[in-house]
This record gives sequence, C-alpha cells and structure tokens, in this order.
Amino acid sequence: MSQRLAILGVGLIGGSIGLAARERGLAEVTGFVRNPAKAEECLKVGAVDRIAPTIEEAVADADVVVCCASVSSLAGMAQVALDAAGPDCVVTDVGSTKLELVEAVGSDQRFIGGHPLAGAETAGVSNARADLYEGARWYLTPNESSSGVLYDRLQRLVTDLGARPKAIEAAEHDQAMAVVSHLPHVFANQLAIQGRTGTERLGGLAPSLRDATRVAGANPAIWGEIFSTNHEAVVAAIRKSVAGLEAAAEIIGSADPARIAAWQASAAVERAALSGTETAGEATHHLRVLVPNQPGILAELALALGRAGVNITDMSLDPTPDMSSGAISIWVAGQAESDKAAACIADLGHSVSLDEAS
Amino acid sequence: MSQRLAILGVGLIGGSIGLAARERGLAEVTGFVRNPAKAEECLKVGAVDRIAPTIEEAVADADVVVCCASVSSLAGMAQVALDAAGPDCVVTDVGSTKLELVEAVGSDQRFIGGHPLAGAETAGVSNARADLYEGARWYLTPNESSSGVLYDRLQRLVTDLGARPKAIEAAEHDQAMAVVSHLPHVFANQLAIQGRTGTERLGGLAPSLRDATRVAGANPAIWGEIFSTNHEAVVAAIRKSVAGLEAAAEIIGSADPARIAAWQASAAVERAALSGTETAGEATHHLRVLVPNQPGILAELALALGRAGVNITDMSLDPTPDMSSGAISIWVAGQAESDKAAACIADLGHSVSLDEAS
Repeated sequence: MSQRLAILGVGLIGGSIGLAARERGLAEVTGFVRNPAKAEECLKVGAVDRIAPTIEEAVADADVVVCCASVSSLAGMAQVALDAAGPDCVVTDVGSTKLELVEAVGSDQRFIGGHPLAGAETAGVSNARADLYEGARWYLTPNESSSGVLYDRLQRLVTDLGARPKAIEAAEHDQAMAVVSHLPHVFANQLAIQGRTGTERLGGLAPSLRDATRVAGANPAIWGEIFSTNHEAVVAAIRKSVAGLEAAAEIIGSADPARIAAWQASAAVERAALSGTETAGEATHHLRVLVPNQPGILAELALALGRAGVNITDMSLDPTPDMSSGAISIWVAGQAESDKAAACIADLGHSVSLDEAS
Repeated sequence: MSQRLAILGVGLIGGSIGLAARERGLAEVTGFVRNPAKAEECLKVGAVDRIAPTIEEAVADADVVVCCASVSSLAGMAQVALDAAGPDCVVTDVGSTKLELVEAVGSDQRFIGGHPLAGAETAGVSNARADLYEGARWYLTPNESSSGVLYDRLQRLVTDLGARPKAIEAAEHDQAMAVVSHLPHVFANQLAIQGRTGTERLGGLAPSLRDATRVAGANPAIWGEIFSTNHEAVVAAIRKSVAGLEAAAEIIGSADPARIAAWQASAAVERAALSGTETAGEATHHLRVLVPNQPGILAELALALGRAGVNITDMSLDPTPDMSSGAISIWVAGQAESDKAAACIADLGHSVSLDEAS
C-alpha cells in the first residue's frame, strides 16, 4: 500500500517522518516549507518526493497530513490543511501540548492531535534521521468526534514508522506532560540559575550539576510556547513541588540520618516504580471487537484502554463493505493486561473475543 | 619514588585508588578492611599489595593514609590513624562533606580532608577501576594548621593518580556542594516522588523524567549521612530554590510566551556560564614563590588562589635543606589567570616570579 503523505514543515521532526516513510516504502511524501530556499535540501536529504508550493497543493490528494510547526502556529496550519484536504484525509500534528490546539480546531472528525516523544537538541532537516521514532512513544489525542477509520489509518502509520502509538485525552496528556516533561525543564532551569555561585567557588562544573542542567534553557522560543499553552498544569505541578521541597527541607533540617535515609528510600521506591511502568516482553493477545462503524467508537475504545493503563501494541480496523459496522482487532501484551482490556471493552457494551496470538 | 600508601576501607573508592597507585608505580599499598572475608578479593583484583589486620598496623610506616568509610565513621577512623601514624605521615579521606569532619579532627597538622568527585552507582572492590579518577576533580581542604610539606605530598599523589587537585576551605566546599550536588539529588527525589501519577497516565516513563530522576533515591544510608552532615547548607539551598520556583510559577502563570521565553533564555545564559567555568586549553605559566617554611603557608596560598578562581594545574614544593624556608612552584593555565595568581600571591606578602612554561 502506498499512501500519500503530506508533511507541512520539513525540519528535524517532519524530515525524520518523511525519511522513515520513504525508506520503509510506506508513502509517497509531499512536503511544504515556508521558506522556499529550504526546498532543495529537503529533496537532497531524501525527506520528501516533491515539494509543493502551497499548503493547499501539498494536501490536495493526501491520505495523511502531518502539521509540523511551532505550537502557536499549529492551529492555523491545521485549519488551512483541513479546509483544503479531502473528506477522507486525516490531519494530525506533532506539537508538545494538545488541549489548546484540539479545542481551537474544534470538532472536525478528520483532525486527531499527535505528539511523538522524540526529538533532539539539534534542529533542521539536515539533522533528520529515518530512525528518530524507532521505538518511541507517540501519543494520539482522538476525541468523541474523531473518525474511527481515520484514527486507524493514523495509528497504523505511526506503528509502521517504528513508533508506539497510544491514545490519550488531550487534557490528560497535557496534565501528565506538565509533570513528566515540563516540570523537569523548570527544575533544570532553576538549578542552572542557582548553580553559578557554587560552580564558581568549586572552579568547575560538577558532574551532578552538569547532568541535572542538561536541558536548562532549551530553545527559548519553543519553550515559551510550550509553557504558555500548558501554564495551568505547569503552575499546579510547580506548586506541588514547592510543597514537596518544603517537606524535604524539614526532613533534612532535622539532621537525623535515619529519618533522612527513610525519605531517600521512599524516593528509591518511586524511582523503581517509574521504571516498572515500561511494558515487559510478554506474550501478545488478540482481542476482536464488533462495533457499529460510527465516528468516535474507535477513539472511545482506545481512550478507555489508555485510561485503564492497557498498552495496545497493535490495532487494526476492518469495516464491513457498507461501512455500517466493523471489527476492530487489538493486540495487547500479557495475560493480565488482556483480561483487563477485555473487561474494559465489555463494560463499554461491545462484543469482544480474546485469544492468544503469540 | 615509591611511597607507602595505606588505604583504610578498600571498596570501590579505596580499591580504585589502590589500583591506580599500583598500576602507575606510585606506591606500595597496604589495605585494611573491617570484614576480613573481603581481604582475599582486595588482593585478587590487585587493589593492594598486602592486607594489615588492624588500622594501627596498616598505617605504622605509611607516608600517606586515605580513610575510605561512610561519612559518619570518618572522624573516628581518622583519629585512630593519626594516633598510630608517624609524625611525617599525611592522613586524608574521601568523604562527600568536609566541615563536620575537619572540625572533629581538630588542628593536627597531618590531617588534610579530601573529596574526589568521582564514583559510580556500583560499590565494592570488585567494581574498582584504575582509571576512576582520571581527569576528575579532587578537592583538598587544608587549614591554617596543615603542614605545607604534607599538603605538597598529598596533592602530588592526587595528581599522579590522574586527578586534578584543588584546595578549598571545608565550609566553602560544603556550601558549594550543597548547591551543585546535594540539591540536584533533592530535585531528583522530588521529581521521582511527584512523577508517578503522570507516568501512569502516560503508560510509560518519558525520556525527560527518566533522565531527571536518574540519581533519585541513591543509596539511602550514604545520602542520609551526606544530607545530615550538610543540613544547614542544603536547607538554605532548598529555600532559595523554593523562592526561584515560585518566581517561575508566576512567570509561567502569566501565559505570556515572550516573558516566559525571556526567563528560559536567562536559564540558557546561566547554563552556558556553568560550562564556561571549565578551564580551556591555554598555555601554562610557571610561578615561583619564596616562602618561609612554616605550617599553613602552602595551604594559605592554595586556598587564596582557589578563592580567586585560579585553577592550579600543578604545584611543587622545594624546601631548603634546613627546612627554614622554601620555594613553591605553581603552574597555572592562561595569561590572565597567571597574572591574577601572581597578584594574589604578592598581596599575601610573598615574593613571586612568573614565566611561561609551555
């Protein structure tokens, strides 16, 4: 199958998607770049098959459109793409925050937000790599108006690019990212701002501070937009941190080694729990779900499974020829997770069968 | 020259010092281990030439004694070593905090605190490596009662082990370490404690949180002692962080991308300044200083240069045969640093000559 993929904005991220899609024979790739001077380089590195002069021409016959731009430009870009794209085209993006964008785009069933968790400190199509998304988590934020067929096509492309798609509500994505990504950046900034005196006194950058401030001051324009589009969740996370640090100061201030060690040990338990959230290599089970083929069904399923903590390793949609109903195949790793998934789907009122695949 | 080196406590740190000293032909190494069952392994990995059954026997004829134990055990161990060691033996340690220890040991001119900035997440002599201290910073905390001859011998050994010695006051060391090392550990703990909800929602550990929590919950027993012996400075650092985070929350809460980007850019400036504190590869200059040979002179010089931000790349002491006066050679990288060093030494009332070495 060769789809037509349009990439709007061909830099590190868009370029890596284009390279991977072309190397894996997944799609014919049309690129659009705001700066026409960049067109030649996109072609030279092999990120696209051709460059279109306008967004409208790039998306005209596309099956999938990926908007790659700064967070504040995405809503406008997605709207232009949706206006120009056909009725059977899915439009997505790669922005780091999702709620503001998803709300701005509204209820078009063709738009599904996205956020691949991979990037680099470099930028530009010249740094693009076909393996950038290999094994990376890639969040998708369908909502109740999203088309199941289009969601299926998008998550299939993400899987085929080598990444691991996961459905999550936009608001939930942003709140979680505030804690696991945006807050670590705030902490790194604070350590960098606070660390100079100590570093000057010590006559060199200590390894712990070097590691802890690696992301400090990362691209100010990009992070100005990430923080501002997710300011409520980030501020809430900071307030919680302040309370936690005040408690830490009280414990350390006690100068009681045993009490401090107990706090340190509790952090070790949390750290181990964080690592344990990665899926282990267990046998994959196949769930087959019969559903009415209507907008939102697939998104509802994917979101419910995501909420239940079920990791979907693969998914496929088989609508009946008249599109009135369909079967969804879902693959889940591990017996316990599969049972949980089956129960969760049954709770939604769908018929589900479960068998071990491999 | 073959010195006699005694290592009290032969684990990862002591074992690596022993391995490096033996591989580089610097010293004959005698080890002492509390647990006699560990003796054989110390010999097998080549960390020591022999194991002594008591601290007294280990230090009996030593030129240098290195105490390697948990922070709370160091004062007792150093005192036993000082009581048993000869009048011309220098006793040092490798603990992460210095003031409490230096104050506990008191004014013995043979004791000079130490802290090599290298370690690993592993422990035990089986993980010892001859190159653990290669290029690593190694702080020494002489005070006004420290012997110049013994300081010279110790910093020479540290240099010969491949590390980069630097003199610093114990109090200053602890205050600076509170910011550059202990605070990053507090931050990592807080992120680990706070990160679980977000990680569970996202169904996996995001790369930013994984990196930011790498040191979270590190060895609770060791860190219980580090935090408790440096509690005042750590609590002060946390209080400053809390104020900084509250300011960050106010800026991010404004949801003004430009204002947030300006804050982000200020963190980038600080981050660049941190990296810039590393010495660049400049020509080395040689300073020759004539001084009366009395306790504390060398420590005074080394500390004054450290305070002035001068990085000493090498140092050598040449007392006159009657030990009544001596010349100290100091090597400093870069013209500006050398001029600053010469001015700083002249301010202390010593005669100094400066010429370029290479």
